Amino acid sequence: VPRYRLLIEYDGAPFVGWQRQSTGLSVQQAIESAFSAFCAGPVDVVAAGRTDAGVHALGQVAHVDLREPMLPERIAGAINAHIRPHPISVLEVRLVPETFHARFAATARHYRYHILDRRAPPTLDFGRVWHIPVRLDTELMHAAAQSLVGYHDFTSFRAAECQAASALKTIRRLHVRRIGDMVEIAASARSFLHHQVRNMVGTLKLVGEGKEPVRYVAEALAARSRAAAGPTAPALGLFLVGVDYPS
Amino acid sequence: VPRYRLLIEYDGAPFVGWQRQSTGLSVQQAIESAFSAFCAGPVDVVAAGRTDAGVHALGQVAHVDLREPMLPERIAGAINAHIRPHPISVLEVRLVPETFHARFAATARHYRYHILDRRAPPTLDFGRVWHIPVRLDTELMHAAAQSLVGYHDFTSFRAAECQAASALKTIRRLHVRRIGDMVEIAASARSFLHHQVRNMVGTLKLVGEGKEPVRYVAEALAARSRAAAGPTAPALGLFLVGVDYPS
Repeated sequence: VPRYRLLIEYDGAPFVGWQRQSTGLSVQQAIESAFSAFCAGPVDVVAAGRTDAGVHALGQVAHVDLREPMLPERIAGAINAHIRPHPISVLEVRLVPETFHARFAATARHYRYHILDRRAPPTLDFGRVWHIPVRLDTELMHAAAQSLVGYHDFTSFRAAECQAASALKTIRRLHVRRIGDMVEIAASARSFLHHQVRNMVGTLKLVGEGKEPVRYVAEALAARSRAAAGPTAPALGLFLVGVDYPS
Repeated sequence: VPRYRLLIEYDGAPFVGWQRQSTGLSVQQAIESAFSAFCAGPVDVVAAGRTDAGVHALGQVAHVDLREPMLPERIAGAINAHIRPHPISVLEVRLVPETFHARFAATARHYRYHILDRRAPPTLDFGRVWHIPVRLDTELMHAAAQSLVGYHDFTSFRAAECQAASALKTIRRLHVRRIGDMVEIAASARSFLHHQVRNMVGTLKLVGEGKEPVRYVAEALAARSRAAAGPTAPALGLFLVGVDYPS
């Protein structure tokens, strides 16, 4: 059977997350339903990152097996036509070898988190930023973030419901920078624990506000206890920006 | 009476435009209503740019006279609290001399127009970009745009309803550049005719698509006839990004 790789963008606001749930519409279900409108038989769409409810994607990657070969650009056009009015778009489709696996073959996942740190509430960015009405110190946040880079036990930053067998992960990059009134936190790793990015952001935010010192982040990591780190940042500021595969 | 200068951001989608209309809610009316919730007597808010229905602002400037002096940061906080859930925020308030006039003292207005030129429809940018499903040639568009820079009779680019006494205007800057799948058109002038930016964009788009040659734009200008230029680009891609005043 031919396997296709999809590059997908979505506004996460109206969805219960990537994965099918009984509680509402998921991105996966919306895409699978669109496939069933022009393909025979059910299809399973497997994604690189099972984004949570409300999390957005600029570069989610997924794969799907079809019974019959189709031109890649026809697949993208058909999905994009059938999926309206849901805010999901397939940006690119490529025929790939059957050995390609969107989830297991991924060598890096890149996330970005946006905080709007000004007094006035967001307007055009509403629903795409975490609004913090005080100015954050991004230099302190960036310095503190560096203690999370590398191979560590991230027990302090994993959700209670996290199903990973181990809390050992390698953070490749965690950069904090200011762009005007926006604080951008960029995180890259082969894979992340459940809520790991949002828990790291919620912890760094306490340093940015001056409520905790820079060393708080390293101490939270060393404690190996969820209670030692900060609260979970809201989903709406998080974007899956891209996924890497071996070339 | 004390005069205050306001820096305002808004999502133009739900509004009939800046100016009060009988047909629906305007940005001006929403702001004046918020003022009346905490100030005695009616207030008039005068803006630099009377943006059309659907046009957004990142840096609209307005002035207002209050009967009683108030701390500028208290004004911003009160407006932002009372104006919810409308997507309007006052970013900054400053006490200014009574000689300051948001509309008549402005020395430059800066607009930006966003086109998304890819096959897939917008998701996160829905309502903030003009979606053109074919790739535009931004170098040709930029070259063509240069014939509009300078002091010209812009009859070909003004709306039929335009109330300006003269069609003579000076375009200071008209830059077209690509940022990924986005085409950004930046336009600056002391003032613009009604629909002038959108009519220039609609004309440049024909060059970008290859439907018209570069010289088409100069010829449209020289013709001094609205019929000689391209159609009006939709409001949803246009942003008022800032207004300059003598320092």
